Amino acid sequence: MAQMTLEQQLLAGNISRMVKLVGRMHPADVAEALIKVPLEKQVALVTVLPDVMGALVLQEMALPDEAALLMQLKPEKAAAILTQMYTDEAADVLAIIPPEDALTLLALMGAKGTQVKKLLAYESDTSGGLMATEFITIQEEQTIEEVLRFLREHTPPESAYYLYVESKDRRLVGVVSLRTLVTKPLSAKVKDVMYREVISVPEDMDQEEVAHLFDKYSFLVLPVVDEKEHLLGVITLDDVLDVAEEEATEDIHKTASIIPMKEAYLDAGIWTLFSKRILWLLSLILINVVSSQVMARYEQVLSTAIALTFFIPMLIGTGGNTGSQSAALVVRALVTGDIQLADWGRVFWKELVVGAVLGFILGLASSVMGLWRGGPAIGLVVGLTMVAVVLFSNLLGMLLPFILTRLRIDPTVASSPLITSICDAAGLVIYFSIATLILRF
Amino acid sequence: MAQMTLEQQLLAGNISRMVKLVGRMHPADVAEALIKVPLEKQVALVTVLPDVMGALVLQEMALPDEAALLMQLKPEKAAAILTQMYTDEAADVLAIIPPEDALTLLALMGAKGTQVKKLLAYESDTSGGLMATEFITIQEEQTIEEVLRFLREHTPPESAYYLYVESKDRRLVGVVSLRTLVTKPLSAKVKDVMYREVISVPEDMDQEEVAHLFDKYSFLVLPVVDEKEHLLGVITLDDVLDVAEEEATEDIHKTASIIPMKEAYLDAGIWTLFSKRILWLLSLILINVVSSQVMARYEQVLSTAIALTFFIPMLIGTGGNTGSQSAALVVRALVTGDIQLADWGRVFWKELVVGAVLGFILGLASSVMGLWRGGPAIGLVVGLTMVAVVLFSNLLGMLLPFILTRLRIDPTVASSPLITSICDAAGLVIYFSIATLILRF
Repeated sequence: MAQMTLEQQLLAGNISRMVKLVGRMHPADVAEALIKVPLEKQVALVTVLPDVMGALVLQEMALPDEAALLMQLKPEKAAAILTQMYTDEAADVLAIIPPEDALTLLALMGAKGTQVKKLLAYESDTSGGLMATEFITIQEEQTIEEVLRFLREHTPPESAYYLYVESKDRRLVGVVSLRTLVTKPLSAKVKDVMYREVISVPEDMDQEEVAHLFDKYSFLVLPVVDEKEHLLGVITLDDVLDVAEEEATEDIHKTASIIPMKEAYLDAGIWTLFSKRILWLLSLILINVVSSQVMARYEQVLSTAIALTFFIPMLIGTGGNTGSQSAALVVRALVTGDIQLADWGRVFWKELVVGAVLGFILGLASSVMGLWRGGPAIGLVVGLTMVAVVLFSNLLGMLLPFILTRLRIDPTVASSPLITSICDAAGLVIYFSIATLILRF
Repeated sequence: MAQMTLEQQLLAGNISRMVKLVGRMHPADVAEALIKVPLEKQVALVTVLPDVMGALVLQEMALPDEAALLMQLKPEKAAAILTQMYTDEAADVLAIIPPEDALTLLALMGAKGTQVKKLLAYESDTSGGLMATEFITIQEEQTIEEVLRFLREHTPPESAYYLYVESKDRRLVGVVSLRTLVTKPLSAKVKDVMYREVISVPEDMDQEEVAHLFDKYSFLVLPVVDEKEHLLGVITLDDVLDVAEEEATEDIHKTASIIPMKEAYLDAGIWTLFSKRILWLLSLILINVVSSQVMARYEQVLSTAIALTFFIPMLIGTGGNTGSQSAALVVRALVTGDIQLADWGRVFWKELVVGAVLGFILGLASSVMGLWRGGPAIGLVVGLTMVAVVLFSNLLGMLLPFILTRLRIDPTVASSPLITSICDAAGLVIYFSIATLILRF
């Protein structure tokens, strides 16, 4: 007989079989099955799970799903589950449920509630907002044997790969890894095996900077201290992974001329979505005005050879597309550090050649269309314009990010819409100049 | 007297002070200082550093810098340093130096060389290409006390937060964390404390899938096994962090209609850069042909009111920009899982309202320009067109990613250039329809 999946068991409502199944599954898989069934079925299962298990499963759910489920549980059960979570995870979900409900749950959580309440006071995008308060501190004069005995008596949190060493006046003075504990002699003193050059961060450091430190030093855990060097909490690598995803989202939004927003799409209100977009759209219209001016200036040419207008969308469109491509290549390489400012010359030559080849092929293709729609002269004008527009846009898309970086402006500002708008205006000037020259107006 | 930085000491060439300074610095900081000085100064320092220290520092350098430095060292020293690295790190750098030099170094590396050679045979973007061969295996019948004694005798690698349990026929049957070792009774048997539901991956799994597993299960380490379930190696989280950056780069390139490439920008040849771009540019020209057709069809209207042409770049440009924005918002939210296919209705309503408000503001702004350049009738046509174009483009940019996802096509295909090109053609149809209606041609 084929095994029923957890999802099927949930729908069938067979509680005892479910609990048995959950015991053999990874919490992430349980969470995945849970969100596929109606909320009341989720409540039914979580209500009968041990609190520790419930905490592990809920931590794996997306925050809005987790909050919705918590709100449907009896407050006592919800608080009991929250008490089993790491303080940072509990704070994250409590931050998005209505304040009066959050206060009720915090009150039911006892001492852990007090800790979580403190964490909720930090800005969510700072080191204080990322840290958890679960950590183990030991003293310099203890021996490894004493530390090991202490650990056996006080079960350390899962994340305790490192133990933090405090001086007598409670300053953070060193760190000892579990690996050190199991490899150094039992009689060795903590102060003789600890690593003293501990890197720690203040509670108000921006999360981007925190993520950068994790990346640079390959940390698993980073301690947070106050101005007296007292340990306040620890940030673990998994908290920072989400930061990296947020940063990538910001970069992709900037690439499309959207001012980065903090909320996930569905959580963002109409006003937020509007205000993050309108300023760029209005600014870009100002660049478009230049295009209109160019067209107006060549009104005579246009009215004499109306066929010229047919190719405007194709020529300026292709220019914009080419510029978007080279800008995206260069911006991303600058952001990831694949290229440095000093490499601009190498990049220039590369894009000059690539642009020339692209221009040649695209020029050929478009001159055929010009020939077909407007005769040989128009075909020549269109083909030559395409070569020039592609070359120009390709180099502009490549140079602008370098110039912005040089001016200490985030190169991501060289977004597709900005490049496209500039290429439009420049493309029109190129087009009409070539047309005037060849058609001899 | 102010302390000299490592960089200054390197340039001054004071070797003994340098070595002392390096001992107190994090390897990542040493690497950062090294790449700022000429290669011969780098060689001078690394030559006198202990091999273990040299390995730690070199691992923190970017691969091309690391390879350049290794090639300048005496082969014996280079091999000695490589021998102190994790096998995956050694394989990564040996993969980018000339094959004959790599073979020389591998031969000098002894047993470690043989292991690294095996790793070099795997495709670099598979689980085999990511794994290291440093891991500790223990047996089911051992007690914790025996395991701890074993660890004290055989210093485990830094990355050994987990020990892997093998059955008598060498199959991977469980995993034990260092935390378990230090918290469970010394007399407990491994088989009674081990976690049995180990998730492992085959040696040929794609790196994207590996990264997804790390993300889903919050792993620090993931074991790689062969078809007999024998342990081959372990992948650590830091190897996968680079994968996440590569994936973000791919997404940003796709957003600009560039076919993803494996090489970093400076390593990519002209042909690669050209071939990843030309197909999209040619395809988009085909869409631009539709725009030309639209213009040609309304030739009569255009020649009667040539002022209409002035606003074409502004109207279709703004349409493209608006569509790029909504597409970027929705594509990214779909890719990160912030929104699901089933949410399309909610997103549609949101973007309908946002598009209407954006359209209203942009329509007002552009009608003023129309009024100024072409009189009241043109002002009305331009303003109304702007409202319609913004609304249409906004909804198109939002719907296309959903439609692509539904058709099981990567929604990132809904790139800025594609959206812009479609919006151009549609914008022209809207413009000329409204113009015909109001100006009564």
